[in-house]
This record gives sequence, structure tokens and C-alpha cells, in this order.
Amino acid sequence: MRPDRDFFYRLADAAKAETLPRFRSGLSVVNKQATGFDPVTEGDQAAEAAIRQLIEAEFPQHGILGEEHENVGVDRDQVWVIDPIDGTRAFISGVPVWGTLIGFKEHGRSVMGLMDQPFTGERYYADGERAWYSGPDGDRQIRVRDCGGLENAILFTTSPHLFAGWEVGCYEAVQDRVKLFRYGVDCYAYALLAAGHVDLVIETMLKPYDVGALIPLIEQAGGVITTWDGGRPENGGSIIAAGSAKVHAEAMALLKAS
Amino acid sequence: MRPDRDFFYRLADAAKAETLPRFRSGLSVVNKQATGFDPVTEGDQAAEAAIRQLIEAEFPQHGILGEEHENVGVDRDQVWVIDPIDGTRAFISGVPVWGTLIGFKEHGRSVMGLMDQPFTGERYYADGERAWYSGPDGDRQIRVRDCGGLENAILFTTSPHLFAGWEVGCYEAVQDRVKLFRYGVDCYAYALLAAGHVDLVIETMLKPYDVGALIPLIEQAGGVITTWDGGRPENGGSIIAAGSAKVHAEAMALLKAS
Repeated sequence: MRPDRDFFYRLADAAKAETLPRFRSGLSVVNKQATGFDPVTEGDQAAEAAIRQLIEAEFPQHGILGEEHENVGVDRDQVWVIDPIDGTRAFISGVPVWGTLIGFKEHGRSVMGLMDQPFTGERYYADGERAWYSGPDGDRQIRVRDCGGLENAILFTTSPHLFAGWEVGCYEAVQDRVKLFRYGVDCYAYALLAAGHVDLVIETMLKPYDVGALIPLIEQAGGVITTWDGGRPENGGSIIAAGSAKVHAEAMALLKAS
Repeated sequence: MRPDRDFFYRLADAAKAETLPRFRSGLSVVNKQATGFDPVTEGDQAAEAAIRQLIEAEFPQHGILGEEHENVGVDRDQVWVIDPIDGTRAFISGVPVWGTLIGFKEHGRSVMGLMDQPFTGERYYADGERAWYSGPDGDRQIRVRDCGGLENAILFTTSPHLFAGWEVGCYEAVQDRVKLFRYGVDCYAYALLAAGHVDLVIETMLKPYDVGALIPLIEQAGGVITTWDGGRPENGGSIIAAGSAKVHAEAMALLKAS
């Protein structure tokens, strides 16, 4: 049996109760070293524990793959994929573009997912068929947009410093061709792509829990998300997501040729 | 006579009525070219017109320096300094880190200022003596933090591509020394600095209306903001803001030596 939206929202609420009070808590990086108290690590661990507890009570037969705690039954037919705070640097810096990522896989495919930003009150949710937004400005179904081609695209990546070696030239070949590029938004970039505000996200070195919740959001909003060599993205690595097949293909051609 | 907080808030409300409905309005960069309709430029102009109308009705003797419309009486004793949408790239991309900047100068000094982020509902306000925050998590006075030294600092800049020529090496010398650096947040970075979440902001090519509202926020929260050569920041240019005199001095030494 698949979970429903109410259950995803319960998970996000439980995580929010652990993360939001620690966001902008005034404890600096220095304090972390002086006192051993690290709000982002504490928030990460407590939020994942809260999510796991609810899943284990409701769906004991499901597996769980998370960032912070030991994996459970990841070879089962249904597996939850959890990143309680994606974007820890944004979290540490007080910028509300981090998110709680909760994905759900069936037979190895990511089929449902939620991205929650507790400070802004935004939720992006893929129910298995369609993608939805709820936030301070209302609730609605979301769709990617078709910007026409790479030359019109807005591109996001978390940081140009993510790329190393041969990847630098590949990434820059795309960056040089787009209309506008921006850095620094982590999972929020994929949510904006699913909602039709931006057109392309290119990243590397992602873990499975960085993308598990985002794959169904992009796909069920009508977008394309793959590895840089065109494969399924469930295992992470080098990832490209686009609002249209054309923008995806144009960027892929540059990534391969460079 | 100085304006009060209620008047600043009325200005921000008037601007918000023009900007927020155009944020994430689904009109892409492509549409702008096809239809001539550009939500960010329209929002910018309409918000500044709304702000000016209120100022001219209440304080006809004051000057106004703005981004979008003709300057009025900028040699007067009291001058308003307005940037209706600072961070147009963030606005276009759907990321809620742009802001409406409203500053107030007396005899050439920025003495009051407001930064408003309408989507998140955050306001950062300097009343002439102290700095204040109001947002979804409550209202409070804000202070910068003392992170101890540059090696513990979180640094923000809008984009590393802002810097050109000799400035690249100067900026990178600082970036190489800090604990953590992030890109992509425009005026929001200064607000986070004033509120004690980050420690250092370094930018260049700023216009007077990019900093007019932010100077009193930083200073009245206890921070330091100057040009790269240590002068008053009211005219913009290359700007450095820090949460402590020590971090400011350490970063200045690297900017000068590089």
C-alpha cells in the first residue's frame, strides 16, 4: 500500500518540530566548537529519528534509507529515502532554501516525494501522478515550463566549486550558454524547477537521499531528471534536471562534448 | 522631522502590493521578449512610484534618490534612498532573497533603513538607534555576532563573477580564509549579518540605492560597513560589511595586500 498525502505531511510536521526551532538559533559555528553543540547536526538527527519512528509504526514492512541513521531493508519493494536537512550550509547561514526531503521508492523507482521548507511554509509534493505546491500564496498543481531552448534557460547549481576535474569544463560549457545562472539553493532549485520558475539544475556528487524525493517532483511536474550519462537518477552522482526534453538534450550534448 | 516605523511600514506595504503579485507570476524570460511584458521591471517601477507618492504627500520637503525614476532634491538635508526590488535575478528565479530597500539619509549620512522580504514576511528595520527584526517567528531587536576572527566567519557575496580585474584576487584572498562562503543572496545577506547569522559580506559595483537602507541596519546592529578603502559607504562602490571590527580589519588587510 502506498502512503497518502496526509502521511507525508505528518512526517514533514514531525521533522519541522525538530529543525525549525534550531534554525537561526544564534549558535554560531564557533559555539559549535566551544560547546560541542551543533544545531544542524542535532536537527538533522532528531528530524530523521522522528520521521523514522512514524514510518516504522505505520509501515513496518518498508525499508528506510536515510542520511543520519543506519539503513533498514533497502532491498525491500518499498523504501523511504530521507534527507532531514538538505542544504546544511544554507541552514547554518540562516538562508531559508534548505529543505526536508522525504522520498518513497517502489521496486527501485522513486514514485512519491515531498520537499518541505518550514520557515517559508512551502511544500512541494509528488503524489505518484501529479506534483503540487502549497505555501503562503496558496495551493496549486505545479508544472514545469518550456522556455524554448538552452539560450533562454535559467540554470541553478549549488556552487561552482562542487565540480572538479573534467566536470568543470562540462559544467561551464552549459553555464556559458544559458540566459541566467544562479548559485546557492540546494534542493530548493529542484522545487523551483518543478513549479516552472527555472529551467535547469546541474549538480554532482549527490547521494541517493539528496535526490530520492526530488525525482518524482520533477517527473510528475512534466520535467526530465537523469544522470549526466542519461541513466536513472535514483542512485545520485552527477545529476541534470530540466523543464523540457529539448533543454535537457541541449545541455546533455554540451556536458558530453566538453 | 524624522519618519517613524509606521511610516516605513506603510512604504513597505505599498511596495509589496506591487511586487509580490508579480513574484513567481509564471511569466518567463522568454515571455518578456515575446510580449514586451517584464514582471520585474514593472514591479520595480510600480513599487517605487507607490513609495514616492507616499513620501511626497507626507514629506514634500525631502529629496528622493531611487533606482527607477528621476532623482529629486538629492542635495537636501533629508533624502530617501530607494531600491524597490534589490536582487532582480533572485526575483526572476523565484528565490525569496530579494528585498525592497528603503533608506533615509540626513546630511549625507544613512540613519534609518528598512529591508522587506514580502514572500517570507521578514522585515529588518533600523530606527536611528537600534535594529529590529519582525518575521514569521516573531519580533525582536537584532545584533550582529562576534565570531572571533576571520577563520570562523561565514562570508556572503552575490556572485564571484561580480569581481573583475584586480578585485578577483582580493576577494579570493578573503574567501580562501573563511570558514564557509555562500553565493547568491543580494540584500538578504546584509540582513542576515545584522541579525547575527553570518559574519561578512563583500561586494563590488554597488549603487547608492543598493546600500542606503542597509548601512543603518548594519551599524545600528553593532556591525561595521565601509568601502574597501575604509571610507563611508553611502555612495556604494566596493563594499565590505562585518559583524565585528576584528573581522572587518582582518578582511580589509587581505583586500589591500592582494
